[in-house]
Amino acid sequence: MLWQDGHQPGFTGSALDREDLIRTDPDRLAAMTSSLSARLLALDGIDPVLDDRGMLGWKSLAEADPDSELIFLGVLDGRPRFTEVRPDLPEGATRSMAIFRVLDLLPPEEASTYAAARSLIDWHVRHGFCAKCGTATAIFRGGWGRNCGACGAEHFPRVDPVVIMLAEYEGRVLVGRQPRYPPRRYSALAGFLEPGESIEEAVARELHEEAGMKTWSVRYIVSQPWPFPSSLMMACIARVEDDALTIDYTELEDAIWVTRDEVVASMNGDPDARFLPPPPYAIAHTLFRRWLDETG
Amino acid sequence: MLWQDGHQPGFTGSALDREDLIRTDPDRLAAMTSSLSARLLALDGIDPVLDDRGMLGWKSLAEADPDSELIFLGVLDGRPRFTEVRPDLPEGATRSMAIFRVLDLLPPEEASTYAAARSLIDWHVRHGFCAKCGTATAIFRGGWGRNCGACGAEHFPRVDPVVIMLAEYEGRVLVGRQPRYPPRRYSALAGFLEPGESIEEAVARELHEEAGMKTWSVRYIVSQPWPFPSSLMMACIARVEDDALTIDYTELEDAIWVTRDEVVASMNGDPDARFLPPPPYAIAHTLFRRWLDETG
Ligand SMILES: [Zn+2]
Ligand SMILES: [Zn+2]
Repeated sequence: MLWQDGHQPGFTGSALDREDLIRTDPDRLAAMTSSLSARLLALDGIDPVLDDRGMLGWKSLAEADPDSELIFLGVLDGRPRFTEVRPDLPEGATRSMAIFRVLDLLPPEEASTYAAARSLIDWHVRHGFCAKCGTATAIFRGGWGRNCGACGAEHFPRVDPVVIMLAEYEGRVLVGRQPRYPPRRYSALAGFLEPGESIEEAVARELHEEAGMKTWSVRYIVSQPWPFPSSLMMACIARVEDDALTIDYTELEDAIWVTRDEVVASMNGDPDARFLPPPPYAIAHTLFRRWLDETG
Repeated sequence: MLWQDGHQPGFTGSALDREDLIRTDPDRLAAMTSSLSARLLALDGIDPVLDDRGMLGWKSLAEADPDSELIFLGVLDGRPRFTEVRPDLPEGATRSMAIFRVLDLLPPEEASTYAAARSLIDWHVRHGFCAKCGTATAIFRGGWGRNCGACGAEHFPRVDPVVIMLAEYEGRVLVGRQPRYPPRRYSALAGFLEPGESIEEAVARELHEEAGMKTWSVRYIVSQPWPFPSSLMMACIARVEDDALTIDYTELEDAIWVTRDEVVASMNGDPDARFLPPPPYAIAHTLFRRWLDETG
């Protein structure tokens, strides 16, 4: 078990075997592509098309657009699995949030497979040119990179590490809300980790910037990928010096200290709860549950 | 204390206040740039120039090349701190490894400040063009991004998450060596985290790919930035199913199980030790020390 019982995060648990050695082996890659059992992820733009059972839909690889760039995702249930970067992907498709309408129902294992495909497609669409010299690049390594014929540079899909954390002080934790949240929702504070920082330092910096807090210690709890477009969410709990707040209102609309009982009410869906929690597929949800377990 | 006593990793602990709000405030940024107390990191190419005390050297910002792009690192000891992306940076300078000759002596706090500067300079040098449309981009946000005048895309410095781990089985841990290591050195196994993965899944995948192991559980221990060019090293300990090895010799030259006593001898510099350990500034060194503490 990679996660504590009952605490598997959203977007994790895919049974896909990525078979990375195949990516760099042209013969094996060609065999995967020409296999009659090869399957193509069914997409509408960049959004998943579900089958009758509410799982990810797959179709024959022969249905891929002949002008698409193919990405070899790996092997699942004995079949090679692909997704495609279509040349006619509509402008703005990668910003579609239609996935959020199905995430409450999609098992995390299915969302996990989809997350890899979505992050890769998004990266290819927005990285068709060499950042080093400006020349158009070509897909290589079975879709897990792009290379430049002009300067020889190799480019790989990026994953942006993000710290997301609960500040903890005398039995309460700090939750905040961003203006774009649905009404009454509060969640853990978060921010991108920067070059030259450790996870622990990024947590301390974000809590200082967003809420004016001084961090004493940081405990890593759990992580998940977040494919909008390609983040790694690293959830932590930070013990802080005191509960005085200096909120950065350019980042947050509000931030409040909440008790364990208030978090329990929120997670239980109590209509009188002080706030609405983050959705189950968000790592902040897992973080709240882990904090409740630890303090229960 | 962000780290357990005596376990501060290399490349951490800079006293730099990054003052991120200044980056997006042209007036405040201009005030920093024109401040008489502003200091410029002294560099030879991309390598640090140390002062008489063996600390990072700094000079007047007036000494910056007028054609350089300036990066506002933050405020340290009350002074604005900058580094520069020189137009005449020699080809290949960003691949210089001269820093490794001074890392044994440079305090981690100094290496930490340098790490941010080095990763940023390296990123600017290799990302002068828009990956979305191929047009030359310009620096913005005080050096913490580049934007494209043609398509409007904004690009931010990347940080590549890497998992580095000790597999643990019945009191022994697995260490491996890469062909490029100095003679007799062994270290923790490592690999880049991919899109669509959590930290826990990346650890399990890497141990499967490199050593054929099945992972039961993963514990995160500690992290550090690694500015070659810009990784986030996330150190973990993984409990595995058994000690059978299937080594991927395209990645590893060798991998061996070592006992606690063998790790103690190695870390103590015993000339008869079974292997040479990673250097103190590498997170694998901190990881070994943490494992010894936990099992001691
Ligand atoms: Zn190029
Ligand atoms: Zn552009």
